[in-house]
Amino acid sequence: MESSESVTLYGWFRSSCSWRVRIALAWKGIKYENIPVSLQKGQQHSQEFLAKNPLGQVPALCIDGFVLTQSVAILEYLEETRPNNPLLPKEPKSRAQVRRIVETIVSGIQPHQNLPGLDIPPGTPDEWKLAWSKEWAQMHIKKGFAALEQMLKESPGKYCVGDQVSLADVCLLPQVYNAKMLHVDLTPYPNIVRNNEELIKLEAFKSSHPRSQPDWVDEGHGINQEV
Amino acid sequence: MESSESVTLYGWFRSSCSWRVRIALAWKGIKYENIPVSLQKGQQHSQEFLAKNPLGQVPALCIDGFVLTQSVAILEYLEETRPNNPLLPKEPKSRAQVRRIVETIVSGIQPHQNLPGLDIPPGTPDEWKLAWSKEWAQMHIKKGFAALEQMLKESPGKYCVGDQVSLADVCLLPQVYNAKMLHVDLTPYPNIVRNNEELIKLEAFKSSHPRSQPDWVDEGHGINQEV
Repeated sequence: MESSESVTLYGWFRSSCSWRVRIALAWKGIKYENIPVSLQKGQQHSQEFLAKNPLGQVPALCIDGFVLTQSVAILEYLEETRPNNPLLPKEPKSRAQVRRIVETIVSGIQPHQNLPGLDIPPGTPDEWKLAWSKEWAQMHIKKGFAALEQMLKESPGKYCVGDQVSLADVCLLPQVYNAKMLHVDLTPYPNIVRNNEELIKLEAFKSSHPRSQPDWVDEGHGINQEV
Repeated sequence: MESSESVTLYGWFRSSCSWRVRIALAWKGIKYENIPVSLQKGQQHSQEFLAKNPLGQVPALCIDGFVLTQSVAILEYLEETRPNNPLLPKEPKSRAQVRRIVETIVSGIQPHQNLPGLDIPPGTPDEWKLAWSKEWAQMHIKKGFAALEQMLKESPGKYCVGDQVSLADVCLLPQVYNAKMLHVDLTPYPNIVRNNEELIKLEAFKSSHPRSQPDWVDEGHGINQEV
């Protein structure tokens, strides 16, 4: 079902969800136009973007004549329609091991850590500002990483699940980047650190890095530029 | 790959994630033993349960000789290994529409609403108690339901995506129950309400309801018992 039509990704350089999609597109060799939508500037609510995606969410992928949203739904779609350079193993148990790592990151960690660094909307009650705090994000990252560390031990190998790069890895690298940006000590998570080091050697993971994007801005988080 | 071995679900009657798995098992006619693990009593941290699942998470499904965790990973596994009574459509675009609804609920809403009603752990700083508040959960439910309402309009039919019951519906019913328990006004979401009304007519959705579980306790949330 490979399509010859153009592919357009609406995303933001620092959005983990956008980064996941960039990695998968690069891994599968799918050429695409990258249109930045700054969440910091609130561009996802602009009339121009809402005309493309009424949900006002990034990433939004225009592909095969329609607009896809939600990063994991996009990743699964790419896997089903572009099965070259697979990002899911063949065996159901291994696929479940990949997907539980994906879900731990995507549902267990990411929802609690995507606000720090963004402006707090005017009118937010004081007691809700916690959700924009580093400490809140750090707590959820540590809890999630402890679970991930256990999962990685159960599927040993060069990458998250054995020796094949998978959707678990696609989600892990951006998550580790966020953890570093939020100054989480990674010492208790040797398997996560080791997998991450393998992943950043891969071209698809490097080229999709926030720093390599056209809308990259050094936000001064103090992350090692070589992360 | 249907297995003749026994299937055991460790779950909690009110956990949305456990309920999702119960619906899928019932829908596919998979018989299982249901072992309650009370999140209210902290039984997920007991030595007995940790011996089964070192992650201390419910739901945990013992099937085909191993333990699966994370509800969506479990649902996808069941779909891949027990394709009868399918919960994903055949066409990739429709599958993506199902999965984006799943992801909106599982990553966008549920992580922010699963604490109200549970005891706040001793030692929790005052400013973190926000996450256990009804108001925090309500805000995320409303935001998520507004997005879902838009998505449902794009895939009209008797259920979430057209006229076939799917994983989107499996996730929707428990989410609507949570919204009612948290006293969210559903008037602005007519498509969600209509789909929910269709779903509660189905035996697999009814039999997996929290009220039908052996560990059901009336927690006095004031929900209509016929929800």
